[in-house]
Parts: sequence; C-alpha cells; structure tokens
Amino acid sequence: MTSSATSSPGPGRGSRRAAPVGHAAMRSANLSLLLRHLHTRGGRSRATLAQETGLSKASVTSLVSDLAELGLVQEGQVERRGTVGRPGTEVRISPLHVAGIGLELNVDYLAVCLRDLAGEVRFTSSVPMPYVLDATVADGRAYPPGLVLDRVAQQLAESLEVASREGLWVAGVTIAPPGPIDYEGGSVRVAANLGWTDVPLGEELAARLGPEHPALSLENDAKLSALAEAPRLARRGITDLVYLTGDMGVGAGILAEGRLIRGWSGFSGEVGHIGLDPAGVRCRCGRRGCWETMVGFDTVLAVLDEDDPARSGRLPMLDRLEHLRVLLEAGDPRLHERFTLLVDDLVRGIGVLVDVLNPQAIVLGGYFGYFADLLVGRVQSALDARLLAADGRVEVSGSALGLDAAAIGGAAAALERVLEDPLLAPPLSADASA
Amino acid sequence: MTSSATSSPGPGRGSRRAAPVGHAAMRSANLSLLLRHLHTRGGRSRATLAQETGLSKASVTSLVSDLAELGLVQEGQVERRGTVGRPGTEVRISPLHVAGIGLELNVDYLAVCLRDLAGEVRFTSSVPMPYVLDATVADGRAYPPGLVLDRVAQQLAESLEVASREGLWVAGVTIAPPGPIDYEGGSVRVAANLGWTDVPLGEELAARLGPEHPALSLENDAKLSALAEAPRLARRGITDLVYLTGDMGVGAGILAEGRLIRGWSGFSGEVGHIGLDPAGVRCRCGRRGCWETMVGFDTVLAVLDEDDPARSGRLPMLDRLEHLRVLLEAGDPRLHERFTLLVDDLVRGIGVLVDVLNPQAIVLGGYFGYFADLLVGRVQSALDARLLAADGRVEVSGSALGLDAAAIGGAAAALERVLEDPLLAPPLSADASA
Repeated sequence: MTSSATSSPGPGRGSRRAAPVGHAAMRSANLSLLLRHLHTRGGRSRATLAQETGLSKASVTSLVSDLAELGLVQEGQVERRGTVGRPGTEVRISPLHVAGIGLELNVDYLAVCLRDLAGEVRFTSSVPMPYVLDATVADGRAYPPGLVLDRVAQQLAESLEVASREGLWVAGVTIAPPGPIDYEGGSVRVAANLGWTDVPLGEELAARLGPEHPALSLENDAKLSALAEAPRLARRGITDLVYLTGDMGVGAGILAEGRLIRGWSGFSGEVGHIGLDPAGVRCRCGRRGCWETMVGFDTVLAVLDEDDPARSGRLPMLDRLEHLRVLLEAGDPRLHERFTLLVDDLVRGIGVLVDVLNPQAIVLGGYFGYFADLLVGRVQSALDARLLAADGRVEVSGSALGLDAAAIGGAAAALERVLEDPLLAPPLSADASA
Repeated sequence: MTSSATSSPGPGRGSRRAAPVGHAAMRSANLSLLLRHLHTRGGRSRATLAQETGLSKASVTSLVSDLAELGLVQEGQVERRGTVGRPGTEVRISPLHVAGIGLELNVDYLAVCLRDLAGEVRFTSSVPMPYVLDATVADGRAYPPGLVLDRVAQQLAESLEVASREGLWVAGVTIAPPGPIDYEGGSVRVAANLGWTDVPLGEELAARLGPEHPALSLENDAKLSALAEAPRLARRGITDLVYLTGDMGVGAGILAEGRLIRGWSGFSGEVGHIGLDPAGVRCRCGRRGCWETMVGFDTVLAVLDEDDPARSGRLPMLDRLEHLRVLLEAGDPRLHERFTLLVDDLVRGIGVLVDVLNPQAIVLGGYFGYFADLLVGRVQSALDARLLAADGRVEVSGSALGLDAAAIGGAAAALERVLEDPLLAPPLSADASA
C-alpha cells in the first residue's frame, strides 16, 4: 500500500529534480516526456514529436519503439498534411494494454471507474449505498465497515476482471474514502456520516483482493475530482484551478501550475470550515459561521418539509437531486429563495479562495455542479463585480463529470504512475494481463 | 526586463520538465543539481556529493571542475572525518564571483540588499522614504514617481558599484514595489499610499541604469519575503509555509513543496481582503469585514492619541515600532487590549489559510514579526486549540529577517537564475565584473 496516489517525493525548495540524470535516467525521463506529450496533446507524427519536444528524430524513433514494446503507444492512421511529400504515420497513446482504476466510497454511493491510458472509460459502475446495505443493516446511516468493504472489494474485483478480460494491465487503484485520510497508515480517520473511526481501508481491501492486487492508494475526493477535471481545462491552457465539492460538507481540490497542492500532511482544501461569519450558525465542528453551514447540502434540505423525499437518506443522491430539480421547476419559492442566498454565500467563500490562490478557474462539483445552470452565471457575475484587477478574473463552470468525478480522477491518478515512469508497464512479450 | 523573478515556464499538469534531456541539457541539469545541493546542504567532499546525489564520482569531479571555472564553487578546508585514510577536500559555494540584488520600494523605506551566492549579505542599505524626499516634496505621502525612481536607481547604482569593486557578477535585480504588479508590462498598477497609478518601474529604472544593467524583475514583497525565509525552514525539512506581511495592508507569500505559489496572474496571497465578518468594519476596498480592517497596522495606531509619534507617517517605520514597544512596556492599557484582540483576529485569518493550504509553518513578518514576542505564543496556542487533526499542526514563528525580508528575498530570487542554469555565469577567464 503506497501512502498516497499523487504525492511527489517532496523536493526541497527550488530543486525540481530529486535525482541526477545519468544515461538510464535520461532515457526514462525522455520516455516519460514523450508519453506525457502524446497523452496531453494527442496523436502526432514522429517528426512533429521531434519538433515539439526538442528531441532528435533518431531519439524519437527509438523512444517510440520502446514505448510501443511496452504497449503504451501504437501506430495510427496517416496524418493529414497540407504539404506534398511522404505522408507521416501518427503515433498515439494505446488504449489496449494499460489502465487505472478509481473508486469513490461515499455515504451515498460506491462508484468505480476503469479507464485506459488513452483516456477511455472502459468500465464504470455506481451503486447507491443505501441499496447496497439496506437488506442487512437496520440503521441505514451507520454501516459496518466490514460489510461496506466487502462490497467495495467486490466492485474492485469486477473491474479487475473486466481489465483482465480485455488484456489491460492495471497500473494502480486509487480510492476516495468518505473522510479524512491517514496517509501514513492508509486508513480513514473518521467518516462521521458512516459512523466510522480509524478504519484501515488499505489493509482491509488488500486482504480481500488477495496477493496479486495492483498498488492501492487513498486520496481525498476533492483532490481526485480536480485531477479529473484538469485535462478539460488544460486543453484551454488553464492549469490553476479550484474544484469545489458540494455535499453535506464542502471541500476543495487545488491545482497550481498543473500540480496538485496537497498541503504538508495532505489536508489542503478543507474549506468547509473556514470561518466567514463570527455571528453565524453553530457548525457541527463547534465553531460558528463555517462555510459549510451556509452552503452545505443540508441548507437546501432544511427548507423542505420534513417528509420530503429529497430529505431521505435512503434514496440515492441522484434521485434526491432530480426531485429537487422538479420542485425548482415547479417554482417552489422556498427553494428559489434558498438558491439566491446560496449564490451570495458561495461567492463569499469562493472570494476567499480567489484572494488566497488566484486560480484561473473554479469548477463547481457535487450538488453545486448538478445545479450549475442555476448557479454558474450568477456566481460568475458576482465574482466579476468584486474583482480588484482585470487579469485576476476567474472563470466559473460546472463539473462536466458529475458524481463520477472522484472515481475518474482516481483512475487518472493511478495512471500517473505510468506516465511518470513508463518502464513500470510490463513489456508486451510478458503476460499483459498479469 | 523579464516579467517575473520567480515564475517557472508553466508546465502542463504533471509534466515536471519543460525540456527533453539531451547530452548538453543533461550536463546543465547535473550542474544545477550539484550547485543546488551545495547551496542547500553546505560544503562537502566530492565523495559525499557523489553518494548523496547518486552521480558517479567521475561525473562529480568533472562537474565540480566546470562549476569552479564558472566561479560558482571553490575548494575549501579539509573535511574532518572520523575514519582513517586520505582526508577529502571540501567543495563549497564560492562567495567570490556571483551575486544577486534585491530592492524593496515601500511607502516607508527603500531597502537594498546585495547578496553573494554563498548567502552572505555583502552590502545593504535602507533609507526611510520620508527622509529621502522631505526636502523636495510638500505632501510627504504623495511622492512623484520620478523623484523616487531617481533615488531607487541611485541606490541600485551604489550596490552595483560595490559588486563591481568586489569582483561580483550580478545575476539579476529583483524589485518589490509598493503595490500590485503588472507582470506583463513590468509596472506597478497602483500604489495607493504613494499616490501612484501605472508606473512603468522596469522601463524607468532600466533607462536610469543604462544599457549594461543586469536583468530586472518585479515581484511582490510577501512572495519575496517567503523566499527569503524559506532556507531557514528548509533546513528543518519544512517546505510548505505561509509568510504574512503586516503593515497597513496584509499579504501572504505561499510556498508549497518548496515552490512559490504565484497564482495564474501573480495575485495569490492577497489575503488582506478576505472577508471574515459580514457585519465588520467597512474597508477602503468598499467591502465589509476584510481581514486588513482587523489586523492592519492602522488598527494599532487607531487606539493612540492623534498626536502620538507612532502615528506620524513622517517617521521611519522602525522608529514608530520602537515607540510602540516603549508604550507597551510601560503597560499602556489601550495597546494591551488591542494586542489581545489582534491575536484573536490573526487566528481567524490564519485559520482560513491553514484550512485552505495546510502549511507546516506560518511566519509572521512586518509589524507582526517585530512584536513576535507578544504574538507568536498566543497565536500558536489558539491555533492548536482549533485543530481538527493532530498532524495538521502548524508552527508559528516570527520572521528572522525583519523589515529587510523582501530585499533579501529579492536577491535570492535573482540568484535563482544561476542555480537553475549555472552556465549563465561568465567563466572566470572573462571579465568577472562585466
């Protein structure tokens, strides 16, 4: 069990490389450079690769051949060019041999995602937690870890089976647990909504998956969601962003210059408890005016009748959201008033994040993302109005990935291992499904 | 004029290197690796260098010889070893040939710092702004840019002269201006306290310094101060920190994994205007409850008599602080009450930064740092009490560099250019003072 999916070895100030460059390291670094380039920019000819990366054509040819033997790239269709001359062959990331798995374990659902190196989702499944366990558990909000982990292991085993059947080697599995992570121990400290304390997730899952399982890592859902959204924004040159999760709690995943800002012990982005009003509502953390008390999903539910189906923790999250949507479209005045206040309070907290981090984009996830049509425009206008400098403008959008963001990000984080060190992938001559 | 002292070329997500590794790049990267290692860890033998960096002994010998020819390292005293055998010779950073200059241009003072590559401050001078210009300007708080820039250029010319006299090649000059920077244009947008708008600092100084001047960059004072404090903390393994400036305004310099977090347009750390109380005092920015209205230097001055010398903008900052110190030591009840409230309000804002960034250390600068003895212990206790997880503990300290922090950081930022690319330094055979 590695302690984190995405932590880098933590180089000292300014020292961007942890290791010296010898000939072997140079080859490995250039393999990684080429693979990342293809991964980010898409398929292109060897000549284009040489031109864009600054590597010699001979080097590109030799490196591409290595990457192909590792099953990481493949030859593609003839590249269309406007000029005369011999048409080039396109090299692109291969979807055939390498994949990563992400799994979000949430109080509402288990979502798993198997994604190949080319970015294609090859298998996904989502199970509403209440449905998983209602048969066996009396109190639907306090799930015994053993039962949940059995189900998680089953869902992982299904994904691994799909991978094996399709000849995909799985580079790793990243799990987003429903509470703060003990990165050292690979456990979840507390999952208040599940009634859990110090559950050794990594160890328990490793035991259930057997000795042959891929590397398992834990990472926070907001951080993984930020990683999942990153490629969409990176294509437009945006590498500084904050992803906001919106559920009972609120969390943030922060990318700066394309790098995940984890904080020194992995607890960056705990924005649900930033104090924005000393005279505000008392939070379950004991303090007053935490952002969560203003924008958490509970604040929406609180305006509904006690027996409203949206308030039922027994229903899957998506059903509850759809029910709210129906009420909103029917013009429910309590909800419309709530959403007006929500915009103001979202802007207050996002304003703090903008002042501290100066991101180029804010991505609204969770229930904020589900109601992006109601929130994005209004939040954007209010942020524009509070702006100090024109080039500090931040762009607000809804998550494109919905409730699967963390699982997709988990798969991406697992694939990072191969992008960083392509030589991890087993050569094609070996058993690709090992 | 380069647009920023410290921005990296902005690699895409995960792509940590911008360039491929060829043999020339490999040599340059390894020169940088060795030089940084010596810079961070101090002098050591070739054998120790090989062992610690993973480079072969032959490579180390050859690279050290290159660095010596560039005047970047020198042979030192015999290294004491507990074992028998031939005593090694120590290689260490040379203080003789390469330096950087930092200059802080502030409403209160101009401070300049010439620092050699070995970290020694070779020349420093600080001039209280009121003294600079009182003779020529009627209204002491609205200084014409031309006059100020003449004085800045004069101070820079003095430092360059010292450098030239001592045979130091100046790698660059970094200037911390008194307001938000237009990084593209190398200008200061607004310096409210000086009555400035859109002053093209870089261009104006370049013109005054003549064609032979070193590379000029602008960077924010809080960011430079964070860079200046970083080595002290890095020696204890701390690479995630927030430096807080305390003056009329409040700003933050953020380092994550040793890297400066600048934000996408350079405006990270604008923490003076984070809104912490919707019912709070109206800020000069127009909003209510900005952190600055609670902890800015004005809040301290406001409790004093109108004619108290500490309130006089005509006095140098240090004199005003010393006067406050005398009042505090005499038991002034208004100031003691103010400092009690200040601790609470500092903790509220720092709490937000801790939740968002999860730094390992908070460094108090400016007037917070000057009164570190009164603030650090109490802020630390209050932060410890609000902690959610034990390993999220953040350590509070006062800046060790006082009001010179930004100038020292500016010199360090200028020297970064050589640490990143040692081949920038002119070989010793050439004129070292060019």
